[in-house]
Amino acid sequence: MILIDGKKTAEEIRKEISVEAKRIFEKRGSRPHLAAILVGHDGGSETYVAHKVKDCQEVGFDSTLVRFEDNVSEDELLEKIRELNINPLIDGIIVQLPLPKHINEQKVIESIDFRKDVDGFHPVNVGRMVIGLPAYISATPQGIVELLKRYRITTAGKTCVVVGRSNIVGRPLSILLSMKGEPGDCTVIVCHSRTPNIEHFTLQADILVAALGKPKFIKANMVKQGAVVIDVGTTRVPEASAKNGWKLTGDVDFNEVASKCSYITPVPGGVGPMTRVGLLYNTLLAASKKIYQ
Amino acid sequence: MILIDGKKTAEEIRKEISVEAKRIFEKRGSRPHLAAILVGHDGGSETYVAHKVKDCQEVGFDSTLVRFEDNVSEDELLEKIRELNINPLIDGIIVQLPLPKHINEQKVIESIDFRKDVDGFHPVNVGRMVIGLPAYISATPQGIVELLKRYRITTAGKTCVVVGRSNIVGRPLSILLSMKGEPGDCTVIVCHSRTPNIEHFTLQADILVAALGKPKFIKANMVKQGAVVIDVGTTRVPEASAKNGWKLTGDVDFNEVASKCSYITPVPGGVGPMTRVGLLYNTLLAASKKIYQ
Repeated sequence: MILIDGKKTAEEIRKEISVEAKRIFEKRGSRPHLAAILVGHDGGSETYVAHKVKDCQEVGFDSTLVRFEDNVSEDELLEKIRELNINPLIDGIIVQLPLPKHINEQKVIESIDFRKDVDGFHPVNVGRMVIGLPAYISATPQGIVELLKRYRITTAGKTCVVVGRSNIVGRPLSILLSMKGEPGDCTVIVCHSRTPNIEHFTLQADILVAALGKPKFIKANMVKQGAVVIDVGTTRVPEASAKNGWKLTGDVDFNEVASKCSYITPVPGGVGPMTRVGLLYNTLLAASKKIYQ
Repeated sequence: MILIDGKKTAEEIRKEISVEAKRIFEKRGSRPHLAAILVGHDGGSETYVAHKVKDCQEVGFDSTLVRFEDNVSEDELLEKIRELNINPLIDGIIVQLPLPKHINEQKVIESIDFRKDVDGFHPVNVGRMVIGLPAYISATPQGIVELLKRYRITTAGKTCVVVGRSNIVGRPLSILLSMKGEPGDCTVIVCHSRTPNIEHFTLQADILVAALGKPKFIKANMVKQGAVVIDVGTTRVPEASAKNGWKLTGDVDFNEVASKCSYITPVPGGVGPMTRVGLLYNTLLAASKKIYQ
């Protein structure tokens, strides 16, 4: 069994991104620049945005953090996005989700210029990805594909079972892995909450992706001997002995499952760090105009 | 075994569309209006476009056919689309594919205002469909979903195997049937040219969709007893006894397979007529501003 080290891989990619960021600076005199919008003071959101700003610093990107209070109006938020859209110094724009209930999240996402939509949530980027055109791919599926590539796990002709059909992980990953090319060319099975006898499908998986958000859902009797197991789960499960009172827990019962796998990602230190690096990668693509002119 | 009568179902839907078209005329004083662009004189394309114009007449839509010779420049074509985009009398725009090689098809598709893209090929419509937002769904997958609905074939919890991953049939259908809701909530398996032991998967199908374009590919030994079989194939296979020298042939070996099925679509008279009606339905949606304002 080989443990897939997402932390180390993400570190390598960060270094590659730093080198490219320097080249961009030399070429155009300004660093890749991410603008992040944060509304309110939700603990999780604060942490995520702080990570994103720190990640930018580490690879030599500029970042702008725009903060609004919870009571910001939708119009104010949209006005700020319009401003960032036309600001030539800003390469990428993200809005930390979730937003307060009085704001239409979808409207906000669609108001971002798709050429700066480095989260890859805008319908144009989703649609282009599905059609097979260059697009920003959202960070988690992109990170998983990158892990498969860097660990030289062949995918063509393999059966890949994706458990979960969310718009930001399960759905795009199931599409990417069934497309022509490598990584890709998998026979893909999409399972979800309405799938009966889910183990009937998971047992067919050469590559099993657990992205349903239920801690330790995947047990040893659901996994084929020799499978590659990718765990996307990151649920905070209360644990008295942990210093913050909780423990990040994956969707796979690692202790049971690991010994059956050819490869497995741990939680933490698997997919998570790759998700963080995905945003940096997209911002780099934006700054180097590799997707859109 | 129940034969799914696409022709009759399409006829019913046409009638419903006619009623709605009349309502729109009474309300706004103009009929739903489709503009079709045809480049060159390819026999197949001529036939398809002629059908589309005739279909419009039959349900009380206006239609405009714009013809260009094979040597039309990309710029000329794009200029015409710009004109149709801003013409308030035109509700829907389609460009008959394929286009001559010197014209970038994707560029042409993307130049159509997505609010008038009644073929549902524009990235915005593809992306919105994937995300689960209102969008124009391309005609064939939409027609198949409609057949399942009207024959009251439940899909939730069923295993659906889609053979073929094309952008206009296999891919969108696999997404639609795995989404939340009815029809939907299927566990979906996407098979394609790189799937080994394809019968291992097709035999699991409660609903089997053959959309790979290989005549009579699906044999009886690949189909589970009691399956619903949807045949998207429409290959013209040479046949001396036929009056035009060919016979429209599906991807399913109907004679072998039919007796094993609970439901099956014939070719011709199954999915084909539903595809034709899909375009009318989208044009109606455009005229009534049900997707976009």
